[in-house]
Amino acid sequence: MGEGVEWGLHCCVTLAWLRDEGPVSIRRLAAWFDLPQEYLKKRLQALTRAGILASTPGARGGFSLARPPERITLMDVVTALQGPSELFRCAEIRQRGVGGQGSGHDVSRPCGISTAMRRAELAWRRELAAQTIADLMALAPESAERTRRNYSRMTG
Amino acid sequence: MGEGVEWGLHCCVTLAWLRDEGPVSIRRLAAWFDLPQEYLKKRLQALTRAGILASTPGARGGFSLARPPERITLMDVVTALQGPSELFRCAEIRQRGVGGQGSGHDVSRPCGISTAMRRAELAWRRELAAQTIADLMALAPESAERTRRNYSRMTG
Repeated sequence: MGEGVEWGLHCCVTLAWLRDEGPVSIRRLAAWFDLPQEYLKKRLQALTRAGILASTPGARGGFSLARPPERITLMDVVTALQGPSELFRCAEIRQRGVGGQGSGHDVSRPCGISTAMRRAELAWRRELAAQTIADLMALAPESAERTRRNYSRMTG
Repeated sequence: MGEGVEWGLHCCVTLAWLRDEGPVSIRRLAAWFDLPQEYLKKRLQALTRAGILASTPGARGGFSLARPPERITLMDVVTALQGPSELFRCAEIRQRGVGGQGSGHDVSRPCGISTAMRRAELAWRRELAAQTIADLMALAPESAERTRRNYSRMTG
């Protein structure tokens, strides 16, 4: 899984803590995380397309959460940044070689290996879907105050 | 996840069905799957190093399961072929930028985001560890007979 997911989650949590500050500009977010603006922009746009962030145009514009942190799951963020692609992609190996094509496989039924791997993936997705940005905030309550303090120092 | 895992699982199931035939040479396995021998060899060697397959040298040598299919989990095969690496790797993003270093983070405690992502990963691993090669065989009982028939046709 790419680092993009980790940045995306950190952005969501940070924006959740700064909700009372209004939209946060990409310039400030880039300074906050010490990231190139272009790199960050791609991720923020993907999160915006997915309806997780809202983008406000204009001089005082920027990014903010589009919905309450209780309603943004980790699965939402992972899907927005990685696409709905599977961890395990079945290449229909059973149809190849001597053991495959024309050997009597019933390929109308899904491959057992693919089924088993997907079952594990489903457990992963279920767990991601069960956790929200609000849960992440609850795991680090002391960060709320620190984030707001450092942000007002940066913007002040 | 790489295609190597899928080949590895197919090799294990096939070798489980051919257990009565003795070791299967890499040449035959490559023909069976229509794969380059060198590609297959790397995966089979990784499975052998992990104690999942046994390698028998000599003219009639080859690969066979090193233990009963009930005792080989999908997690064993995935770990053998992918290493113990995590799906999600925490890059300690919380320590970067204005929001990070020197800003008062207690970095002795694991990052909440990393913790949440690992929880999901654990659910994935648990599910992989709960399924064995024997379970995969049970999902496709008709393949046992077909595999043995096609193999004896190939070798006969």
